[in-house]
Amino acid sequence: MPDIYFENHANTRVDERVIDVMLPYLREYYGNAQSIHSLGTHSKDAIEKARSQVAQLIGGQESEIYFTSCASEANNLAIKGVAQAYRQKGRHIIVSEIEHFSVLNAARRLSQQDFEVTVLPVDQYGLLSPEDLKKAIREDTILVSVQHANPEIGTIQPLAEIAGLCRERNIPFHTDAVCTAGIMPIEVTKLGVDLLTLSGAQFYGPKGAAALYLKKGIRIVPQIDGGIQENGRRAGTENVPAIAGFGAACEIAAQEMEDNYRHMIKLRERLIKALPEKIPYLYINGHREKRLPNNINISVEFVEGEGMFLFLDQKGIYVSSGSACASKALKMSHVLAAIKVDTAVGQGSILLTLSKYNTNADIDYLLAEFPPIVAKLREMSPLYGYFQKTGQRRAAGPGTDYEHEHEDDQNQEDG
Amino acid sequence: MPDIYFENHANTRVDERVIDVMLPYLREYYGNAQSIHSLGTHSKDAIEKARSQVAQLIGGQESEIYFTSCASEANNLAIKGVAQAYRQKGRHIIVSEIEHFSVLNAARRLSQQDFEVTVLPVDQYGLLSPEDLKKAIREDTILVSVQHANPEIGTIQPLAEIAGLCRERNIPFHTDAVCTAGIMPIEVTKLGVDLLTLSGAQFYGPKGAAALYLKKGIRIVPQIDGGIQENGRRAGTENVPAIAGFGAACEIAAQEMEDNYRHMIKLRERLIKALPEKIPYLYINGHREKRLPNNINISVEFVEGEGMFLFLDQKGIYVSSGSACASKALKMSHVLAAIKVDTAVGQGSILLTLSKYNTNADIDYLLAEFPPIVAKLREMSPLYGYFQKTGQRRAAGPGTDYEHEHEDDQNQEDG
Repeated sequence: MPDIYFENHANTRVDERVIDVMLPYLREYYGNAQSIHSLGTHSKDAIEKARSQVAQLIGGQESEIYFTSCASEANNLAIKGVAQAYRQKGRHIIVSEIEHFSVLNAARRLSQQDFEVTVLPVDQYGLLSPEDLKKAIREDTILVSVQHANPEIGTIQPLAEIAGLCRERNIPFHTDAVCTAGIMPIEVTKLGVDLLTLSGAQFYGPKGAAALYLKKGIRIVPQIDGGIQENGRRAGTENVPAIAGFGAACEIAAQEMEDNYRHMIKLRERLIKALPEKIPYLYINGHREKRLPNNINISVEFVEGEGMFLFLDQKGIYVSSGSACASKALKMSHVLAAIKVDTAVGQGSILLTLSKYNTNADIDYLLAEFPPIVAKLREMSPLYGYFQKTGQRRAAGPGTDYEHEHEDDQNQEDG
Repeated sequence: MPDIYFENHANTRVDERVIDVMLPYLREYYGNAQSIHSLGTHSKDAIEKARSQVAQLIGGQESEIYFTSCASEANNLAIKGVAQAYRQKGRHIIVSEIEHFSVLNAARRLSQQDFEVTVLPVDQYGLLSPEDLKKAIREDTILVSVQHANPEIGTIQPLAEIAGLCRERNIPFHTDAVCTAGIMPIEVTKLGVDLLTLSGAQFYGPKGAAALYLKKGIRIVPQIDGGIQENGRRAGTENVPAIAGFGAACEIAAQEMEDNYRHMIKLRERLIKALPEKIPYLYINGHREKRLPNNINISVEFVEGEGMFLFLDQKGIYVSSGSACASKALKMSHVLAAIKVDTAVGQGSILLTLSKYNTNADIDYLLAEFPPIVAKLREMSPLYGYFQKTGQRRAAGPGTDYEHEHEDDQNQEDG
């Protein structure tokens, strides 16, 4: 049985070249990076090399890169750290409804203190309206955080436009770029962001290292106080092997991005085209074009996500049901709710996310194994039985139906 | 030239057996621990196994162990998390003067908000007086944090007594046990602590994993909000390889603790005896008996710590000057200041901390190489020249002089 991993937004397999970079820092160069003796210097040099590699990947300065242990930590540092640093100026924060929980819950924590949080809705594709943002911004707004792309439905936001609105008003703007960094080109200066979160574990780097880009001049209050590491903005012994691996992953990603991007887009398009053909009443969530190259989010009517998930697992196909951090809940995710996927249909949602390691053979295998699984599950489904008997659904229609949309487009062209 | 590492409080070399446990989670078992498919289950199982290994090492329950990325994070979580959880009850916190910076600066951060922090002094050996603590406790005290042993001078606190005072008054008590866990036996229930920080990197585990023991019933506010990891108390993708390695390090430490302890004590005693014999005007800081088995902190009169450090480095001997997190500052540490080491003498302080990997040959090498280095540095020292000419010191006497103390003891016995 094959092992086919389609959960690459959660984290990717680590590149062997990255592991090779890490191992010496696990074995012989075990010194503390804050030590000034020779052994410590090896560690320090590895961290500074990685800092440069991260900076180059996103077009920032080395002095603007701060390492953290994971993206959630970086997001918490960004949200809470900026809020605390600018609290004399104002107490109002804006985030989107479909942010990762580490942004949403960090903002929620602040709202339990003396901050006020506006949570902006998105449209049926998951897009935030810059107009809505403009209206939401107030005199006392001190932070806006909108993700670059969504980890569940893959929708890519009009980030430069959003950042521009904040820049005009001199409001620090943070973006969670965990899904895009290392996968698509990012230039922080072109995007005009002030803070950006990225994580190596999403592009063939190891778990245990992420970073916050913090534009020079933006103030932040550290969330882990202690030693002088990371220029006083993040205390704690540096995880040298993971940071070195993260750096290597950035360099490899920059070199091979175009090829990997094209490769994943091809696989994605195969799935987006074939899945609705092979499985009736299957809907693709998210935006058709403004979409991560490696994201396919589907809702399959009359079945439960859990059932598909488990039967696919038995075939050696690993997918996710919603965001990894919330997947145990097995309820419709906050993102699908935000784009107003019908609750009944949304129960049958799974997420397939690709990596550079996925192959056409993986897609063939999925396309062979998945339709019979859905058929089997539907046979067991009372909802499907009811539908077959009566031709009626018990619940309302799908989220985003590209087939219909496509027909509409053609009609318009014809007209 | 040998590589002799005497900086094991900063972090240790990773045990090869620990690396062997980690590698499969870097390579083939790369799934996200929150995923419920087979690949995710491997990761989840590794984390739960490690949780059990950590719990066993310190005598806690698995459900009381929370993984963090480093000890500084765990200390911040303990201090800020408890303060925020109990803030309705009171706003007063007590810490000792010689805590690690991650405790001191976390407390300092709270004092900039609406908390009040009492910093208790220690005696010339670094010992906190339970009487002083008793006096400092107020009606509104909601947290006391006193380290188990000091990372610089190695002094072991009368922890059970201190914890008992807090328990009687129903005040959560935290201890930073980074220097003792895995090195000496710890039983959280016997010690009577409510929160305890430990880190694998100090006993042959990897960087990137530490833990907070949080006794059942003690409330805490998470400092990294987001997903449901660590039972909602620490969000963020788990660093599975590091956590698995940390767990393995705990199990190995528990099995081999007695042998390692004896081995290090022997080496320590060799140094504590030989160093003052071979080098005049050398003083050992800290307590003679209530001392970590692997800690030697010395002040060498008429020389600078930096000079010794660099010359030793050239000989392949790696020591620290003060706490690793602050070592770049190259000024006398807050710990030596707290035990009132004379400023002039304190400038000439270095810290040697042992591991199970150090050998008698390492000690031989140090004892052969170190005295000539001190002699050479003293030749260049104007203070030493002045002393030789006049027999007078420009500054006052040493911190703790065991030779004299020993004589005093003998005198008392004689008397």
